[in-house]
Amino acid sequence: MMKNIRIVLINTSHPGNIGATARAMKTMGLNELYLVQPLNFPHPKAHEMASNAGDVVDQAIVVDSLEAAIGDARLVVGTSTRSRTIPWPMLTPREFAEKARVETLHSKVAILFGREQSGLTNEELHRCHFHIQIPSNPEYSSLNLAAAVQVIAYEICVASQNEVVTPQSVDWDYQWANAEQMEGFYEHLQRVLVALDFLKPEAPRQLMTRLRRLFHRARPDVMELNILRGILGAVEKNKK
Amino acid sequence: MMKNIRIVLINTSHPGNIGATARAMKTMGLNELYLVQPLNFPHPKAHEMASNAGDVVDQAIVVDSLEAAIGDARLVVGTSTRSRTIPWPMLTPREFAEKARVETLHSKVAILFGREQSGLTNEELHRCHFHIQIPSNPEYSSLNLAAAVQVIAYEICVASQNEVVTPQSVDWDYQWANAEQMEGFYEHLQRVLVALDFLKPEAPRQLMTRLRRLFHRARPDVMELNILRGILGAVEKNKK
Repeated sequence: MMKNIRIVLINTSHPGNIGATARAMKTMGLNELYLVQPLNFPHPKAHEMASNAGDVVDQAIVVDSLEAAIGDARLVVGTSTRSRTIPWPMLTPREFAEKARVETLHSKVAILFGREQSGLTNEELHRCHFHIQIPSNPEYSSLNLAAAVQVIAYEICVASQNEVVTPQSVDWDYQWANAEQMEGFYEHLQRVLVALDFLKPEAPRQLMTRLRRLFHRARPDVMELNILRGILGAVEKNKK
Repeated sequence: MMKNIRIVLINTSHPGNIGATARAMKTMGLNELYLVQPLNFPHPKAHEMASNAGDVVDQAIVVDSLEAAIGDARLVVGTSTRSRTIPWPMLTPREFAEKARVETLHSKVAILFGREQSGLTNEELHRCHFHIQIPSNPEYSSLNLAAAVQVIAYEICVASQNEVVTPQSVDWDYQWANAEQMEGFYEHLQRVLVALDFLKPEAPRQLMTRLRRLFHRARPDVMELNILRGILGAVEKNKK
């Protein structure tokens, strides 16, 4: 389970938080850390806060874009305290951990954590299959970054010690599409909708966001995604 | 429940850990903090790490002895990673939180956290009704002090919300499509796919079955279904 879980920190400001995150991860048995454009890394403060989890810091992979961090992940979730203008499928940390236990049998799972001050952007949140909301005090829900990682990693650790096999884990015919394949589909879909004059680039409203939410919720497997792309291709070919 | 829970830190070395503990507590709705002989407190670093939980730091009660911190508590528990030479009743954080939910109806509950380097002494551990062991990586189980508080406080917060709220049930913006609407969509989709020559009635294979499985899995709401029907209409209108 643990090998297929990736923690992704986006635009982290304080290197100490990267170190504290590494420690939180390692204590719970996680070690795959991706850093998307950290503001100040590498930095001695990261190792200081990592305590004996310096190896997780050393092995952290720094990337330039979210795509590079989640392209191969078949389940992407993001932590969020805000309620969205468009509701998105939500999981508690416990529900997520149970889902992750099953998913990691065959797929890479990426968990996104946003900036210390402002969290994840809407665009980043729309790349997720689910949003995770950590139960908290409604009057002060701002967990420290590493503390949020600790809670999620703790639930994963607890779930990993759970032996129950659930039906979801078995016998699906094809793998889930990964994030890169999903983006390719959305780009193709958008192109076709513009060509059909159904999506007006000057007034896009929330059309793509709603379609993104719908198809992310469905979680197409690679065969289903092929069918959808095939339909889009047929529409293009038949367009007058 | 929250009012009857007290966090007790013993001989804390780093004031930053006191502040981070205050933040961890407040995010989970806890605010009663006792400090037994802290080594370096008050200290600006405590407030810095507390972020917006400075009130918890300000109200923290500094005492000279463990007795003064737990005298009025009817349930005392201590966190421990070591296995004891003499076995002691043990609880997981989750079992403890459930017990605390009941105990706090009528009693004060104190939770002891030890020194950053060496934890609680045997004597302190022997003052406890139960020891709590946080599930962790057997090869590196040393959680940061505030991270340990975060995990325990999180379980308390979850237990305090004993009424389970399932995310899917709340606040979605539109109703799910009903079966009749779904069938109308599938019929429309099939008509368009035949017109595009993508679905060949003489060799349908499992195309509609796969699309049915995909969209049923997504469970479109009525707005999403309207969008999908709108796209199908646009395809028909634009067909050569």
